[in-house]
Amino acid sequence: MRLEEDCVGKLEVEDDALYGIHSLRAATNFPITKEKVDPLVIESYIQLKKASVTANYDANAIDVIKYNMIVEACDYLLEHHHLESFITPAIQGGAGTSTNMNVNEVIANVAMRLHPEIKIHPNDDVNQAQSTNDTYPTAGKMAMLKRLPKLTGEINRLIETLDGLAKQFKFTIKLGRTQLQDAVPTTFGKSFHAYASLFRRDLKRINQASEELKSISMGGTAIGTGTNTTKYYREHIVDEINKITNMGLKQDTDLIDAIQNTDHFVAFSSSLKTLAVDLSKFSNDLRLLGSGPQSGLNELLLPKRQAGSSIMPNKVNPVIPEVVNQVAFEVIGFDATVTAASEAGQLELNAFEPIMFKSILTAEIHLANAITTLVDNCLVGIDVNVDQCLDDVRKSAVTATVLSPILGYNKTTELIKRATKEHDTVPHLLIQNNILSADKVKQLFSPEYLVNGNE
Amino acid sequence: MRLEEDCVGKLEVEDDALYGIHSLRAATNFPITKEKVDPLVIESYIQLKKASVTANYDANAIDVIKYNMIVEACDYLLEHHHLESFITPAIQGGAGTSTNMNVNEVIANVAMRLHPEIKIHPNDDVNQAQSTNDTYPTAGKMAMLKRLPKLTGEINRLIETLDGLAKQFKFTIKLGRTQLQDAVPTTFGKSFHAYASLFRRDLKRINQASEELKSISMGGTAIGTGTNTTKYYREHIVDEINKITNMGLKQDTDLIDAIQNTDHFVAFSSSLKTLAVDLSKFSNDLRLLGSGPQSGLNELLLPKRQAGSSIMPNKVNPVIPEVVNQVAFEVIGFDATVTAASEAGQLELNAFEPIMFKSILTAEIHLANAITTLVDNCLVGIDVNVDQCLDDVRKSAVTATVLSPILGYNKTTELIKRATKEHDTVPHLLIQNNILSADKVKQLFSPEYLVNGNE
Amino acid sequence: MRLEEDCVGKLEVEDDALYGIHSLRAATNFPITKEKVDPLVIESYIQLKKASVTANYDANAIDVIKYNMIVEACDYLLEHHHLESFITPAIQGGAGTSTNMNVNEVIANVAMRLHPEIKIHPNDDVNQAQSTNDTYPTAGKMAMLKRLPKLTGEINRLIETLDGLAKQFKFTIKLGRTQLQDAVPTTFGKSFHAYASLFRRDLKRINQASEELKSISMGGTAIGTGTNTTKYYREHIVDEINKITNMGLKQDTDLIDAIQNTDHFVAFSSSLKTLAVDLSKFSNDLRLLGSGPQSGLNELLLPKRQAGSSIMPNKVNPVIPEVVNQVAFEVIGFDATVTAASEAGQLELNAFEPIMFKSILTAEIHLANAITTLVDNCLVGIDVNVDQCLDDVRKSAVTATVLSPILGYNKTTELIKRATKEHDTVPHLLIQNNILSADKVKQLFSPEYLVNGNE
Amino acid sequence: MRLEEDCVGKLEVEDDALYGIHSLRAATNFPITKEKVDPLVIESYIQLKKASVTANYDANAIDVIKYNMIVEACDYLLEHHHLESFITPAIQGGAGTSTNMNVNEVIANVAMRLHPEIKIHPNDDVNQAQSTNDTYPTAGKMAMLKRLPKLTGEINRLIETLDGLAKQFKFTIKLGRTQLQDAVPTTFGKSFHAYASLFRRDLKRINQASEELKSISMGGTAIGTGTNTTKYYREHIVDEINKITNMGLKQDTDLIDAIQNTDHFVAFSSSLKTLAVDLSKFSNDLRLLGSGPQSGLNELLLPKRQAGSSIMPNKVNPVIPEVVNQVAFEVIGFDATVTAASEAGQLELNAFEPIMFKSILTAEIHLANAITTLVDNCLVGIDVNVDQCLDDVRKSAVTATVLSPILGYNKTTELIKRATKEHDTVPHLLIQNNILSADKVKQLFSPEYLVNGNE
Repeated sequence: MRLEEDCVGKLEVEDDALYGIHSLRAATNFPITKEKVDPLVIESYIQLKKASVTANYDANAIDVIKYNMIVEACDYLLEHHHLESFITPAIQGGAGTSTNMNVNEVIANVAMRLHPEIKIHPNDDVNQAQSTNDTYPTAGKMAMLKRLPKLTGEINRLIETLDGLAKQFKFTIKLGRTQLQDAVPTTFGKSFHAYASLFRRDLKRINQASEELKSISMGGTAIGTGTNTTKYYREHIVDEINKITNMGLKQDTDLIDAIQNTDHFVAFSSSLKTLAVDLSKFSNDLRLLGSGPQSGLNELLLPKRQAGSSIMPNKVNPVIPEVVNQVAFEVIGFDATVTAASEAGQLELNAFEPIMFKSILTAEIHLANAITTLVDNCLVGIDVNVDQCLDDVRKSAVTATVLSPILGYNKTTELIKRATKEHDTVPHLLIQNNILSADKVKQLFSPEYLVNGNE
Repeated sequence: MRLEEDCVGKLEVEDDALYGIHSLRAATNFPITKEKVDPLVIESYIQLKKASVTANYDANAIDVIKYNMIVEACDYLLEHHHLESFITPAIQGGAGTSTNMNVNEVIANVAMRLHPEIKIHPNDDVNQAQSTNDTYPTAGKMAMLKRLPKLTGEINRLIETLDGLAKQFKFTIKLGRTQLQDAVPTTFGKSFHAYASLFRRDLKRINQASEELKSISMGGTAIGTGTNTTKYYREHIVDEINKITNMGLKQDTDLIDAIQNTDHFVAFSSSLKTLAVDLSKFSNDLRLLGSGPQSGLNELLLPKRQAGSSIMPNKVNPVIPEVVNQVAFEVIGFDATVTAASEAGQLELNAFEPIMFKSILTAEIHLANAITTLVDNCLVGIDVNVDQCLDDVRKSAVTATVLSPILGYNKTTELIKRATKEHDTVPHLLIQNNILSADKVKQLFSPEYLVNGNE
Repeated sequence: MRLEEDCVGKLEVEDDALYGIHSLRAATNFPITKEKVDPLVIESYIQLKKASVTANYDANAIDVIKYNMIVEACDYLLEHHHLESFITPAIQGGAGTSTNMNVNEVIANVAMRLHPEIKIHPNDDVNQAQSTNDTYPTAGKMAMLKRLPKLTGEINRLIETLDGLAKQFKFTIKLGRTQLQDAVPTTFGKSFHAYASLFRRDLKRINQASEELKSISMGGTAIGTGTNTTKYYREHIVDEINKITNMGLKQDTDLIDAIQNTDHFVAFSSSLKTLAVDLSKFSNDLRLLGSGPQSGLNELLLPKRQAGSSIMPNKVNPVIPEVVNQVAFEVIGFDATVTAASEAGQLELNAFEPIMFKSILTAEIHLANAITTLVDNCLVGIDVNVDQCLDDVRKSAVTATVLSPILGYNKTTELIKRATKEHDTVPHLLIQNNILSADKVKQLFSPEYLVNGNE
Repeated sequence: MRLEEDCVGKLEVEDDALYGIHSLRAATNFPITKEKVDPLVIESYIQLKKASVTANYDANAIDVIKYNMIVEACDYLLEHHHLESFITPAIQGGAGTSTNMNVNEVIANVAMRLHPEIKIHPNDDVNQAQSTNDTYPTAGKMAMLKRLPKLTGEINRLIETLDGLAKQFKFTIKLGRTQLQDAVPTTFGKSFHAYASLFRRDLKRINQASEELKSISMGGTAIGTGTNTTKYYREHIVDEINKITNMGLKQDTDLIDAIQNTDHFVAFSSSLKTLAVDLSKFSNDLRLLGSGPQSGLNELLLPKRQAGSSIMPNKVNPVIPEVVNQVAFEVIGFDATVTAASEAGQLELNAFEPIMFKSILTAEIHLANAITTLVDNCLVGIDVNVDQCLDDVRKSAVTATVLSPILGYNKTTELIKRATKEHDTVPHLLIQNNILSADKVKQLFSPEYLVNGNE
């Protein structure tokens, strides 16, 4: 054991631990969950440290030996990860200071193991010209941005799959339903196209909201004032980060604002929530259209993924949309958490970013995974029960809507009522009673006319 | 115009206004909504004032003339309301002080109009031994409790109606559905009974949560310390309120707590939210079972309440459950508001009770009204499409579940698959292939056995 | 009384009522709230009717006499409103059909009163080539867009006011606080500037989200298929609307999607929620910085708006930020409602738009009103307690942070501890112990250096 | 690899896997999170299986050899856990069937490994007389109940600690604050007592809500009809569970209801949410009263737990309350998730229980852990800054409230204004101007009188 000290007192740390006293205190203080800080946050933090020491070196604010050591340590960690050394919990008090200090301590210790002759101080050398205030939100934003392509990639794949289905079922007529009551017919092609349009908007919104995350607070240090930085550093730090990460980040024009406000996260979380709502609605529709097999709508045939019951033989359930629904409900909850956490910010800082980061980073990955299984295990291989669809259109009196412009709303109402009462069909009644010619009836009630009208 | 003054300065008030400077400032300061403070809050407040002056008189803390004047003014207002004089908005800052002062001012002015020779001071005489801190939460609780019987009465009526339907459709078989897939059969009697059981629990929970509202903070005055009250007053004020209102209120044993914490409201709101969730689920089921008329489940026939479409003749929609759903969504939102407002309380007071009161009092009345229309316009007169129900059970292969204990899960699965493939029925296959005797098959697949098993 | 009939049956309507049977049924079916459909929705609906009849006339789908009558009736109503005739409740089932039919009936009756010799049918003539499916969401979007300038105008005013305060207090030093603990100093100028930056983003987000609302579904009629419309109508209806309203609306490229999905509303509501969160955080800060007057932070002096207590003389409370907080909590609840309602959409329609419209339209106006009072009654006339601010900076040991780059983190920590223990100040200790020269100390601890560092 | 088959097809399973085809499909179908089903759910499920086979054996529904084998396997698993065999993810579609089948498969395989000569079928033998419909919600409720004592134990410890602090600081005067403005004084003893009262109610509510969880659906099998059970089994299964678990469970009187409705979970989750709100408010107060150290309220001295800044030396932050706040925000989100999931239930089943279980089980443990650290790391060792508290009371003019009953509200207002203006104190002004005698003033403004009034 080695003895370390901070402003609170002394504490023994395992001899071979790469972390130090601050990390260890945090691990004890926050026993909420075993989950550690997201590795993407850690990786981003190490990149920030490397960029910072480089900018400081260029500003003549650190000597070449320490500069080389810290860069070497950062590179080593970016390659070998040592995730076991990053011990601060995902849910932590302290506004991220524990995470920052954990990174500072590990980098310092790695540097000193590689070059034991020189002493590297976690605060003075590694943390130099930084504050948790400016690095922590930046690392969080970087992590969210790094995770994003997986999600947007899956949304894209969802859209492409839906576009494919729209083509595949372009001419497959189906009954429309409004308020769960029979409505005028449409096609499955149009339905799938509509879902594709929906998720295209979600993609656009998420990308748009994520743009805000590229505006970072580096150089602001404590509360955004730039305390203890050089002018050179402040002006070059973001360039250095971009050199390392190639992420196209830019420095916020108001660093005080950038550090105290977390509206970026609320806005980004809202865009994820909107996607969640839409995925849930889509899943609801899939489950409803696939209801049956004998006594439901039974218009969509979802691929069978697993036996559905321990007691009812051969029952198969829409398990994939069901898991998507649940991820959606989870993400709606995450958004409530982010909302509450953001509202709770006070004065020059919001101390509740850790739970925002956890909520958003989890939302991103769960949504991506949900779409993966939705596409691969439910949409690929989905089929339409064409006979059922045709039958549903044929037996629904609502197709008589096409008569309204010809016969008027009231007379059409009467005809439908009569057909229903006499277990007859409206087309038959029209011909039998010489209301319209057989040809006209045939034309009006043809699937093409029903679906496309006067195109 | 008359000129009034407070610690902020002077202000002109209309000559014939019963309210005074404080009320007028509030009306200007809070231009959020035209909605005024709920009349039940005002009424409760006047009752509190009457009780307070009585307790003060008994404690020799006010002279007999003023006492009589204030009681007379309260009685006058309880009879004639004068709601136009209570001008403070439903959404107001100031933790309810504006409402309290509005009541104080109106009572004082009414008293002085009835007896112009004596001066009554809104603070010294009417507000004597009270604070907004202890009166405002009390008036809010009283209003919620007064509004409750309407809601619980409607829940009771809902339960009774469902019990009636449970009896009416006791033997009406219907297919069960889990995860929207055909499951073993049940009866509509059992279904309605299950909804009745559900709402019985909601009723119990709401009543239980409302009990907490009976614990009031009167006598605590500012922050619960009892500042400026007599011992006699503190010990008798709640009795006086009960004499006037007959509400069985009791004094909280920790007045500091009673004034600063608003968990009562969160708990009560949560019980309303749970009811809302259940009403929404029930409405969803009604709409789903009533889907059609030709190409849906079509098992429930909801009473037709209005034409459903401006363009599709004879379309009728489940408009009543739809409005219930929307009230449910609204109440879920109100609960989010109450949660946020309660969390925001600080130190010795929660300044955000006005929005909690508005949210909860609106939730109570909207839920009650939603149930009214649900019962009167949808459940009374509801009918079952018995033919459809029987047909759904008959055509669903899932009834073969009863074979599992006899043939085993795997063999039953095979039989169902074969029946589905060959467009045959499992009972027919069983007999045809001499797997079971015709009698045994008939017994197993009889509605009674399917629904009740080995009773 | 006159007797009217629909597909449900007959009903008596008051002789002089401009509405008809459908409106009356709705008024009875939905007794949730006394609040009627928002007048902006009604106005927008009438504009849609006028545009539709014009496009239909140009398409030769209605004769000139009826066309003129309907246009005349629309113009009459746009001028004279007759709001008492629009009797359908704000919370209604039926996906807006009641609102649409109410408008159809009133227009038809107005037309026939002006020209009693010709019969106008509410469905066949007024509703021609429209469905509630395409008109209702359009009218809702138009109402939200019409209400928006009031809100964005107020946000702009808020930003300008904050910019003004940023200039006014540009050099007024104040202590920064992170996690409610003393942090490095900043200025009130920077603080107000940061809030301005925040609300600038909110403004941008709300405008961006509102752009989506300009994409409308007109021409889609039932479920977006365009049933019962002419090609001409579909292609010209949006132009006609723009001629009347000048709102720059455009037709959605996927009308099926535009009618069934309500993600636009979720996204717009989310942007309002984000504003609400930010207003609440700002209000929290105002209240905290204004706490006191003797035993709080007491750095901000909020204008006194009303007496704050019925019992504590001369107490004045931050009533304006308090009411803003409450509106924020309300809007967070509205967003939860919109989220739930949008998720509940099914297949070709979301039947729960009425509660979404009510929630969003109320959020817009309440937020606008909240900002109005925040600016006029709290920010205009706000002042800084300069002495207190200077004193707070002077007595806080945290200013010693500037020593870190010179003395190192550990030594600085020690100095602060010693100063605190000995009730001394760090600058004094530095000089007394010859750690730094008096000049250097003076420079480092000057307000300019503390706030701006090495600029 | 061994080849297994289900109604969907064939699949290879690792030879030494204790799970089977169903578990494996689930692991593939639901790649949302790496987190597996909570071990308490698994343990409860195995207990249910043991109880079921016992009840079935007593009902002569299974032979003695299989009965013994299954009991032995269950006992083995209850002792050795084999958690690596329970591979279904915490977030899963399928309404829990995957979890149930995973348990069935593992038990069957363990039994056959112990006694390879006999074949045990996961459905026919292990799952006999059960359905996921009745077992899954039961296992979930059992898990929640098993986790509860840890939470209630911590709440109790919190209450005891607060009671201790209430005694410790019984006579420590402090200023009250309403709306963050100086209000009449109180004591820290009363403050801590008020928090204890608050959490006492939370404890009561949580216990009350948890009582509902004891009502279970066992015996209902598919949708609650009791399909494929014997009467004996249905009547004895709950007793058997109680023999094994000693949990005092009871069979629901309406099994159809018990299986389709999830209001129990909403109500229980709401009670956790209310606790979360209260913990958050308490944490906010701790942070506010501990603000400083030089330029804040600085009345409470929270134990220092870790260095608070990477850049600001000696800064120490209230990290423990901060982590409690974040858990509270997380739990508010969980409740939103549970609400949405419960509302989404359809007809005879709610398929979204997995996410409800995950949310509630996580909320229980996070809340318990949050309280652990709050008590151990923040409340134990907390101290009051007595000098600051006295000073705050002394300098606040609000103590003059005691003059109101003597001098009247207006005159007292004037006096306070004058004192404030003249930088004088009200007591001094009273004596100097002979308004009251020095003795009277001393008595009125003594801490005892200020805090307790006329007791």
